[in-house]
This record gives sequence, structure tokens and C-alpha cells, in this order.
Amino acid sequence: MLDAFPDSIVRLIDRFSSFPGIGKKTAQRMAFHVLKDSKDNAMSLAEAVKDVKSNIAACSICGGITEEDPCGICGDPKRDNKLICVVEVPADIYAFERTSGFNGLYHVLGGVLSPLDGIGPDELNIDSLMDRADSDSEIVLALNPSIEGDTTCLYISKFLEDNDVKITRLARGMPVGGELEYTDDATLLRAMEGRTSV
Amino acid sequence: MLDAFPDSIVRLIDRFSSFPGIGKKTAQRMAFHVLKDSKDNAMSLAEAVKDVKSNIAACSICGGITEEDPCGICGDPKRDNKLICVVEVPADIYAFERTSGFNGLYHVLGGVLSPLDGIGPDELNIDSLMDRADSDSEIVLALNPSIEGDTTCLYISKFLEDNDVKITRLARGMPVGGELEYTDDATLLRAMEGRTSV
Repeated sequence: MLDAFPDSIVRLIDRFSSFPGIGKKTAQRMAFHVLKDSKDNAMSLAEAVKDVKSNIAACSICGGITEEDPCGICGDPKRDNKLICVVEVPADIYAFERTSGFNGLYHVLGGVLSPLDGIGPDELNIDSLMDRADSDSEIVLALNPSIEGDTTCLYISKFLEDNDVKITRLARGMPVGGELEYTDDATLLRAMEGRTSV
Repeated sequence: MLDAFPDSIVRLIDRFSSFPGIGKKTAQRMAFHVLKDSKDNAMSLAEAVKDVKSNIAACSICGGITEEDPCGICGDPKRDNKLICVVEVPADIYAFERTSGFNGLYHVLGGVLSPLDGIGPDELNIDSLMDRADSDSEIVLALNPSIEGDTTCLYISKFLEDNDVKITRLARGMPVGGELEYTDDATLLRAMEGRTSV
């Protein structure tokens, strides 16, 4: 009995299933899609994968991803360089950019403190943040609302204590469109604690 | 405001989101995974995509996918060449092979009759099936249990009428592990109609 696909397909399924959130069955469907798709589309996928690795580098200022150094945001003179938003990963930058509601700069931390995973302060871009934090600037800590994110916020605020910068973090409360009935206790508690006057 | 990712990332997101079942957000997560992944892994993904297109072709006998012609199944003298299982797409072959319970050959139809999508008998590998159907062979029609699949079964059985071959199709009934309470009416009806003695 034939117990496996042709070698090339097996290799491709193997690569696809290494992606986050892609299981064996989806990887298989994707590999067969490549096989069925036009040769042009497959070649352009292969090229796009190579281009991403060869064209994109980290911005030397903020650590975001860019094809030029410094990146378009750091190099934009119209942006407020006294306002720095600290995020975990480059993709978070684009979440804020899509809102069109933030005109400052960014700083990519590269993760959050997580001793169990061997990630300490030296593994994150904290020193370079200190260099960027002038005395009259504001640092917005926009880390994910998790235990690790909160610990990292605390660590950074202690670290920058002497720099005399204003340190803020994202508001917590009800997500827009959320329903009280289905909101978890921790979020509801934060929403109540942080209530604002109308 | 920066409204988009770097060009290379946009192209890769675009390619990934053309896959079946992959939405914009998953494509974005995949593209960032490629960016974060090692260069070796990314290059091996690009190579695997190219290899699939250049190494794999259709078997000239069954129409399945293979790196050599004829494929490992058609070229295996130990398999029963009087028993031909007709499937819609090459991936279906591997579903049967995994069960290790079928020792015949396969024939890939390349789809099912679907006039609304412009797929008529000429678009399917029906003529070549006629050439393979000897008078004492059995053709198992293993098409998906859909309206189009049933229509195609009917068409093929009419088409092969004069060849004096035995034509069968897969049993219909309760899936193993299924629960009566949650089984749809059509399946339940077929299961009752096709009841067998214990």
C-alpha cells in the first residue's frame, strides 16, 4: 500500500504545518492548492517568501520592520517624537496605524518578560528605549493585557523612573461592541475601577 | 499615517490569502511567521513550493499525482487491475490508501459534472476510464455524496452500460462514531434503506 504523498508534497505539507494555527489537514489542503494553482501563482508565492526574508529588516531606531532604514514612521518629520508607543512585536504597530489615531513614534520591545521561557530584560530592547526617552517625552506602554505584559510594564516603569518621563498605559475596560453579560470578571472589574465621568 | 505593511509583506499576505480557507488575518499571521522564522526554513518553503510545481505531474494512467510515470500504484504488479476506484481529485486516493483496505487501482475524474460551473463530460477523464474498463472488471464510483456526485455516478453508469463491467458505489449510512440523535434525515434514511442483516 502507498502510505504517503509524493516527496515534494510531503515536504510542502511539512513546511505549511509549521505555521502557527495551521494543522495537518489545512496544510494538506494548502499544498494541494499550490499543486492545482497556476505555475505563475506558485512562482510568485516562492518569490514573495524569499523577498520577505531578503528585503525586510528591522528599523535601527524603533525595531519595526521596514524595507528602508530608518522606517517610514521614524523618518516622518510630521510625527510627534516626544510620544513613544512601546509594543511587543512589529505587527502591533500596524494595528495602531490602522486606527489613524496615533501620531507619535513606536518602539518594538521584541516580546515581554517571561522567566519561564528564558526571556529576561537582556533579551528585550529596553536599553535602546532608555536612550530614546527624553525628559519631557511620554512613553505609552501598549503591551498585551496579560500577566507577563503587566510585569513588563512594571519593570519598564521602574527602569525609567530616573529619566523623568511620563509613563502611561492603554486604558482597560469594555471592548467597543462588547456585551456586559458575556464579559469576563477581570475586564468588568477594570471597567468599573476605571469608570470616567460622562 | 502609514496605512500598509512593507511591500514584500503585502505581496506575501496577498498570496497566502488566495488559499482556500485562509482569511486575511491568518494570512497576515503566516506572513509574519515567515518573517520571524529562520532564513533556512523560509528558503526551504520557497523551494518546496517550486518543487511541487516542477517535480509533480499527473500519472498517464490513473491521473493521480506522482513524481514518476506511471505512479507507484499503477506500476505495482501486486495490485488488482480488475478493480478500479473512481475518485474526484488526486487527494481522495490518499484517503483510501490510508485505510490500507483497498488493493485495486484508481482513476481520477478531475471533478464532477456541474453544468452551472461549465463542467460537462468533456472536461472530465471519462473517455480514458472507458478504455480502462475491461469486460470483467469492477468500477467503484467513490464520488462525494452530493447532488453533482450522484448525477455523475448515473452518467458514468449509463456510459459504461455496453462495456459489461460491474459498477458499484460506496455504501451510505451512519458514519462510524456518529450519533443517531444528531444525524441528518437524508443520512438516516439511507442508513435505514441499506440496512444489513447482523
